[in-house]
Amino acid sequence: MPQPIDFYFDFASPYGYLASRKIDGIAARYDREVTWRPFLLGIVFKIVGTGPMFDYPLKSDYFLRDLPRSARRLGIPATLPPGSPHNTIPAARAFYWLKDQDPAMAKAFAQRVYNRFFEDGADVSSPEATAEIAAEIGADGDQVLAALQDQKVKDRLRDEVDAAIENSVFGSPYFIVDGEPFWGSDRLDQVEDWLKTGGW
Amino acid sequence: MPQPIDFYFDFASPYGYLASRKIDGIAARYDREVTWRPFLLGIVFKIVGTGPMFDYPLKSDYFLRDLPRSARRLGIPATLPPGSPHNTIPAARAFYWLKDQDPAMAKAFAQRVYNRFFEDGADVSSPEATAEIAAEIGADGDQVLAALQDQKVKDRLRDEVDAAIENSVFGSPYFIVDGEPFWGSDRLDQVEDWLKTGGW
Repeated sequence: MPQPIDFYFDFASPYGYLASRKIDGIAARYDREVTWRPFLLGIVFKIVGTGPMFDYPLKSDYFLRDLPRSARRLGIPATLPPGSPHNTIPAARAFYWLKDQDPAMAKAFAQRVYNRFFEDGADVSSPEATAEIAAEIGADGDQVLAALQDQKVKDRLRDEVDAAIENSVFGSPYFIVDGEPFWGSDRLDQVEDWLKTGGW
Repeated sequence: MPQPIDFYFDFASPYGYLASRKIDGIAARYDREVTWRPFLLGIVFKIVGTGPMFDYPLKSDYFLRDLPRSARRLGIPATLPPGSPHNTIPAARAFYWLKDQDPAMAKAFAQRVYNRFFEDGADVSSPEATAEIAAEIGADGDQVLAALQDQKVKDRLRDEVDAAIENSVFGSPYFIVDGEPFWGSDRLDQVEDWLKTGGW
């Protein structure tokens, strides 16, 4: 049985969103599963010494142009939510809480969060918005709100972020295919080639 | 007559080197010329607030893996010169000094500098190494060494760097195709599609 592909992403990462719309389809063509692994880019930025792309002069203007252009080329709708950066702790905590009960539900939740953020351009970073999205895919919204404050759930996410850093994940999206790391939605074609050929 | 493609790069940029081996061929398929525009990434970094990729933990390890992997995929030999960052002021000054006499010679010089840096993995950042490479393509090495200290030549490069920043160039390689900016050797396929389709 081949290993699943690790797909690391931050819920506020627009290029992570683009990748989220493609990675399962690519993996399926090579009979692979994808393990979705939300993490917190803000914590990684502190370690690496970088920051959100929208914080940099010149670069930020470029991203505002590159993102919709790359999205159109991939045939994916893309709208940026207002403001930045967005707090993605609630969504990431809810994801792992859901995952420990039902991995398929967690993935459906993640897809819905991403689509609300970047297809609809809605700011869904609050605990309430997170709970609402979880409720839309069948979870109990009140339980989600309670879980977000639960120390065990907080620790669960912290462990996942620590593990991401252990695995040298420094950006979003970030893929690991059979031990080989790929950073960025613009590496999806390399990810696919790697799956096809086993490496080059 | 369609506009030339602007190709901005720093001589110490390995991804700029990868792009340098591809951009003229891509442009030629669409009857386009390429204007090579070396600039100084170090000055841009100060404005943008970023730094050389090898300065960042985690990221630097990734680049050491991604660069040869991307090079192999493009069928381009790639070896990193020892040390970093490299001073690319001599090569950039010599380029514009040569260009004002003979643009074709300047491009041949730039290709040779890049190939010495990243095909051979040699540190050719010194004025002497720069003059030697210029001599290999038919320039007078002593004249090159003198030009590198000439205030007019220094100002010429400064003006080019200022113009690059005016055009929002913040990384290497960076392309402008009919006003449309593309950053990174991983945007070469988008550059080609843009030339083919006129945009999307």
